Amino acid sequence: MALASAIIAGLIPAAAVIGLIFAAYLWRVVAKVQLVGGQNVVRSQNGREYLLEEEQRGEEEVVAKAAEIQEAVQDGAYAFMMTEFKYMGAFGVVMSIIIFSLLSIVKPEGERTKQDEMQNGIFSTVAFIVGALTSVLSGYLGMVIATYANARTTVEARKGIAPAFAVAFRAGGVMGFVLAALGLLNLYLTIVVFQRFYGDNWAGLFEAITGYGLGGSSIALFGRVGGGIYTKAADVGADLVGKVEKDIPEDDPRNPAVIADNVGDNVGDIAGMGSDLFGSFAESTCAALVISAVSSLGVDHDFAGISFPLMISASGIVVCCLTTFVATDIYPARNASQVENTLKMQMIISTVLMTPAALLVAMMTLPPEFTLNVPSATPGQAYDTKTVKNWYLFITVATGLWGGLLIGLQTEYFTSNRYQPVQDVADSCRTGSATNIIFGLALGYKSCIIPTIVIAAAIFTGNSLAGMYGIATAALGMLGTLATGLAIDAYGPISDNAGGIAEMAGMGEDIRERTDALDAAGNTTAAIGKGFAIGSAALVSLALFGAYITRVKIDLQETSILDPKVFAGLLIGAMLPYWFSAMTMKSVGKAALAMVEEVRRQFNTISGLMEGTARPDYKACVAISTNASLSEMIPPGALVMLSPVVVGTLFGVQALAGLLAGALVSGVQLAVSMSNTGGAWDNAKKYIEAGNSEHARDLGGKGSDPHKAAVTGDTVGDPLKDTSGPSLNILIKLMAVESLVFAPFFANIAGGQGLFFQWFGL
Amino acid sequence: MALASAIIAGLIPAAAVIGLIFAAYLWRVVAKVQLVGGQNVVRSQNGREYLLEEEQRGEEEVVAKAAEIQEAVQDGAYAFMMTEFKYMGAFGVVMSIIIFSLLSIVKPEGERTKQDEMQNGIFSTVAFIVGALTSVLSGYLGMVIATYANARTTVEARKGIAPAFAVAFRAGGVMGFVLAALGLLNLYLTIVVFQRFYGDNWAGLFEAITGYGLGGSSIALFGRVGGGIYTKAADVGADLVGKVEKDIPEDDPRNPAVIADNVGDNVGDIAGMGSDLFGSFAESTCAALVISAVSSLGVDHDFAGISFPLMISASGIVVCCLTTFVATDIYPARNASQVENTLKMQMIISTVLMTPAALLVAMMTLPPEFTLNVPSATPGQAYDTKTVKNWYLFITVATGLWGGLLIGLQTEYFTSNRYQPVQDVADSCRTGSATNIIFGLALGYKSCIIPTIVIAAAIFTGNSLAGMYGIATAALGMLGTLATGLAIDAYGPISDNAGGIAEMAGMGEDIRERTDALDAAGNTTAAIGKGFAIGSAALVSLALFGAYITRVKIDLQETSILDPKVFAGLLIGAMLPYWFSAMTMKSVGKAALAMVEEVRRQFNTISGLMEGTARPDYKACVAISTNASLSEMIPPGALVMLSPVVVGTLFGVQALAGLLAGALVSGVQLAVSMSNTGGAWDNAKKYIEAGNSEHARDLGGKGSDPHKAAVTGDTVGDPLKDTSGPSLNILIKLMAVESLVFAPFFANIAGGQGLFFQWFGL
Repeated sequence: MALASAIIAGLIPAAAVIGLIFAAYLWRVVAKVQLVGGQNVVRSQNGREYLLEEEQRGEEEVVAKAAEIQEAVQDGAYAFMMTEFKYMGAFGVVMSIIIFSLLSIVKPEGERTKQDEMQNGIFSTVAFIVGALTSVLSGYLGMVIATYANARTTVEARKGIAPAFAVAFRAGGVMGFVLAALGLLNLYLTIVVFQRFYGDNWAGLFEAITGYGLGGSSIALFGRVGGGIYTKAADVGADLVGKVEKDIPEDDPRNPAVIADNVGDNVGDIAGMGSDLFGSFAESTCAALVISAVSSLGVDHDFAGISFPLMISASGIVVCCLTTFVATDIYPARNASQVENTLKMQMIISTVLMTPAALLVAMMTLPPEFTLNVPSATPGQAYDTKTVKNWYLFITVATGLWGGLLIGLQTEYFTSNRYQPVQDVADSCRTGSATNIIFGLALGYKSCIIPTIVIAAAIFTGNSLAGMYGIATAALGMLGTLATGLAIDAYGPISDNAGGIAEMAGMGEDIRERTDALDAAGNTTAAIGKGFAIGSAALVSLALFGAYITRVKIDLQETSILDPKVFAGLLIGAMLPYWFSAMTMKSVGKAALAMVEEVRRQFNTISGLMEGTARPDYKACVAISTNASLSEMIPPGALVMLSPVVVGTLFGVQALAGLLAGALVSGVQLAVSMSNTGGAWDNAKKYIEAGNSEHARDLGGKGSDPHKAAVTGDTVGDPLKDTSGPSLNILIKLMAVESLVFAPFFANIAGGQGLFFQWFGL
Repeated sequence: MALASAIIAGLIPAAAVIGLIFAAYLWRVVAKVQLVGGQNVVRSQNGREYLLEEEQRGEEEVVAKAAEIQEAVQDGAYAFMMTEFKYMGAFGVVMSIIIFSLLSIVKPEGERTKQDEMQNGIFSTVAFIVGALTSVLSGYLGMVIATYANARTTVEARKGIAPAFAVAFRAGGVMGFVLAALGLLNLYLTIVVFQRFYGDNWAGLFEAITGYGLGGSSIALFGRVGGGIYTKAADVGADLVGKVEKDIPEDDPRNPAVIADNVGDNVGDIAGMGSDLFGSFAESTCAALVISAVSSLGVDHDFAGISFPLMISASGIVVCCLTTFVATDIYPARNASQVENTLKMQMIISTVLMTPAALLVAMMTLPPEFTLNVPSATPGQAYDTKTVKNWYLFITVATGLWGGLLIGLQTEYFTSNRYQPVQDVADSCRTGSATNIIFGLALGYKSCIIPTIVIAAAIFTGNSLAGMYGIATAALGMLGTLATGLAIDAYGPISDNAGGIAEMAGMGEDIRERTDALDAAGNTTAAIGKGFAIGSAALVSLALFGAYITRVKIDLQETSILDPKVFAGLLIGAMLPYWFSAMTMKSVGKAALAMVEEVRRQFNTISGLMEGTARPDYKACVAISTNASLSEMIPPGALVMLSPVVVGTLFGVQALAGLLAGALVSGVQLAVSMSNTGGAWDNAKKYIEAGNSEHARDLGGKGSDPHKAAVTGDTVGDPLKDTSGPSLNILIKLMAVESLVFAPFFANIAGGQGLFFQWFGL
């Protein structure tokens, strides 16, 4: 056992380091593309096509222009990051104080001493800070590479689809591997360091480690909600003045908000999605660890066994490295029609490879049999023990893994314009924007069916085989191919930016068509990524919920849906996603209006702007977006952060249990339907614009009435798919992890019954 | 006690008869308005104004034309009813056979004999048939009076707002009182008749009575879903060809679908809402009865005590009679701005009057203390007893009653264009239809907050004071003012029809303005009615759910959200409203397209139609709508009817418990947000059209760009507010009552564990 432990203690950081090295390698390849005109000949993979086009417009000025725009986007992204860091810093300090205070003042019960509570307070706070910093660092690096690769993708698009795809996908890979590896490494190192203080008290150690999950998730609040508001405020603001009032095309360099719009893609989709999935990874790992710490694995101090969740993530990194080669070297996409398939194959291959890896990890790390604590059927008894075999955990991981793939594939079916559903939505544009909206909403509603069944099946399987540990490992299974999933996802906004840069740099129509083709696939993969994100968020939240139940020591009876506190909580919880979405949608509206005013102001005061002789003040728009988005995220952020505290304190731990479950089951549906509706509208618009089929051409193309109706749908879909929908992941996860971390505090107040009920003697 | 029982045995039918007499009185007043020109002078309440206008256009032809249109609408409504009756009949026969078979084959347990089960099967089936027939009859009578009063409202509108309002509101009152009185009377008579067979076996008696609720709810499926599809298929179909293709105004008599559109208002809003609320009334009463039958009230054969739910409804009828006089005689609305206030006052007055009535009933009928069975905290024990005081039940009824008012008032706030929210939505039309859609959706989401909190508070209060009996009586409290609620609600479509008839009969612009003002208030009251409907549906479903839990004999532990079957059920249940809404939205789309084709065909083949020289074939359009709506309701109907059976049979009673709770908590949000979003869009459009304020005029009025954007929102909102949203009430109620009726069957299959889990040995 000691040998196995030593090997595992080496394997986890080794895998993380492999991930980081691989990310560095991908970066190097991307960096070989130089932003200087005329120098790319020797590096082209597809020389013939390249030379042909170079004759047409390989001029150095265009490339120089692209480099200049890239720099502006980069500056904008940094400006946002720096301001966001200030908010995050303030938030982090306040949260640290709250975490430390609330946990340290808990009245010790049973064998616990005052010192134990103090220690828990200190280390939970430290773990929180480490988790938060890791998330910040990952998001930052993601932004760096994304804003580095966008113009390079544009430049490569002059040679053809294939080289442009390679740059965008590799850059996405950097993001994916950095995040997966850093997340794993820092968590591992934190555990190692904490062990020096906790010694053999694993239960205490892993309770404190849950702070890491809270840290990751809190940053995701900024990334997803703040970033989501930013990106859509800039996008909608730019469009409302540019397209509607001034009648200039999208991404026109005369539009002062155009840089902010491109910054938004990086801020919202790269950093936002990254922090969201990092949060899921951190939380599911913490949930699994905290549960297994009190299982026989923890009691027996079986290091190999307890490392199972970390080893799953470690093996995932290696699997994803192998998978990436398929897309970059073995079978890269050579033309527009192959892009979506190549990305889909990434998902499938990583899932297939991950399956035996998970089996191997389960067999290697876990003892053939061990026992877990599950909620007891006997009142008054804290828990029952449940005997679990190691291959059960392979099954739970595999369920999550394949469930994720299934959700991904069905999301593709509902949001790609290669299939019937989006084509039907496009067709409904014939009768105007109202029918487009109705069909789009119905599509989103319908797309909830399969993900929900998949998640329910994963929950049932996981819970039946291994209680809440089964659910946490199912979440880890779904996130097993995290690096690849993130690469696919980050690819989208990079391509989107590349298109914007092509337009702004004045490149030809055919270049723009290529980046559009890359971007259309990116819309679908973005929806797929959102599917994964919400699926894993659901599983993670439930696992955290299970850990919360254990910590507040309520039993099966006290969590019955027949209990009035639980049911009332369930109902209010189911309402929270609606309240939250109303807030985020309104925030986008207000931030967009602030942008509209600034853009109008510039058009009115800067003479020569419309004629193209004067430069707009891009930075002013970036500043508007930055400040508006960060201040507008405060109300929804407060709703998320305060709801569990208010309910837990006033109405007790049972009402809070109901609240979490209600928000989970209702939020999943709203998030899935919003993402898919938005993705479908976007691609229905692209379908009409591209006109690649008889049916699509029949709809009239750009500028036709059906196209106008499709644009309306796309605009409605923007905040749904990029702000409100994905932000719901944060709502359900953050409330759950916060409840878990503060569980001892809630259990302590009025005996867990809540102050309100205590006052009224209920 | 015997004396009290005898008095109560007389009071219940007496109240019902009072309701029927009052309805007959209202009808007589409405019938005094004659559809003959020039004869109305003596009956005018407002002679001066009448005479003034009579000089302008009191011509007999216009009135004759109105009478003719009314006849066409009446014929269309009858045609739909007759076809619907065939479907209902077939459905009723099949359901009767299923109910009888499934309940009769249940293996008797404990003291029950084969004969008991057979008896339960027979009487449940009979109760089902009586409930269904009562609902059919109420809906039919509602349609008769509505299609009788619409043209009379138009004719009276020539005299002014006041007389037109009086006709429409009195006609709505007929509907309200007939339904409330018939529902109560037939239920009471069924109980009396059943008692002859059941004797002292009250538990068995009231179990069989639950069939009455199922009957009422099943008919509501046709009324709400079928009727909802009908009304919007006709509306959207008429608009798409008329407004968009042919550029003729709304309600233009040349449009072949115009009669179908007006029929739809009666079919969907009058009969649909009526059957929905009748279902809620029947179900909540049945739930209360079945629970109290096994309480000490039932065991002691306390007839007065067990009649409490019926007496609440009986006293409600009397209270509503008094309330109605306020609107019709004491303070009738005299001008456009008073209409909404008058209707709001109806809600408030009936609530205020009902409060002491409920106290009186609780004190009169209930013993000072009695005991109820509540789910037991001791495993293996069927139930614990809970001691309840009679004034507790006053509190639960009052919570429902005032909760309903609160929901109604907040709905008015969110959907009336006199307040900020709708004005903000109207303002967002400046930047186009996309922002209108975004703001409207956000408004709907936000409007979920208060109703959810109100329902949660009612549930918590009811359950804390008197278990599931408390929740059932809270639902009865909310429905205590049913007759007034229905009168307010039915008033809307009657005014809407009156407007259509004014347009078609070629009456002047000022008449149309008056009916529009009545109609705008009607939109708000329709949203309020929907708020009541969903609020009561939520309470009713939970009460039925509680009764279901009792019948399948699962305990608190087995309904824990930590149980994987329960949680998986919860998640899938939360998804069902989305699936169902996707289906109903698509059904409207398909039925509307069928209508579009017929309208196009008529314009193409009937020469002189466009010029107004030839008459369109209205009946063909009515037939299309009728058949399309009834066949399109089959898929969503099947989803509702089959989900509980499939889940209960395959996955067992625990999964079904989760499913019901999940559908309830998620469905409430979706239904509320859909209704209010749709209502807000409709009134935002009317706000721009009416131009009654500086701000409204600034938006440009009819034909302006903001108005076009508002029309898009209105069209999107149509299926949301009139089909998909309200249909969700049926989803959550029908699944609950079906589960309750078939509970013994589910509990019997594989020991309640479900065949699927039995096969796989889980």
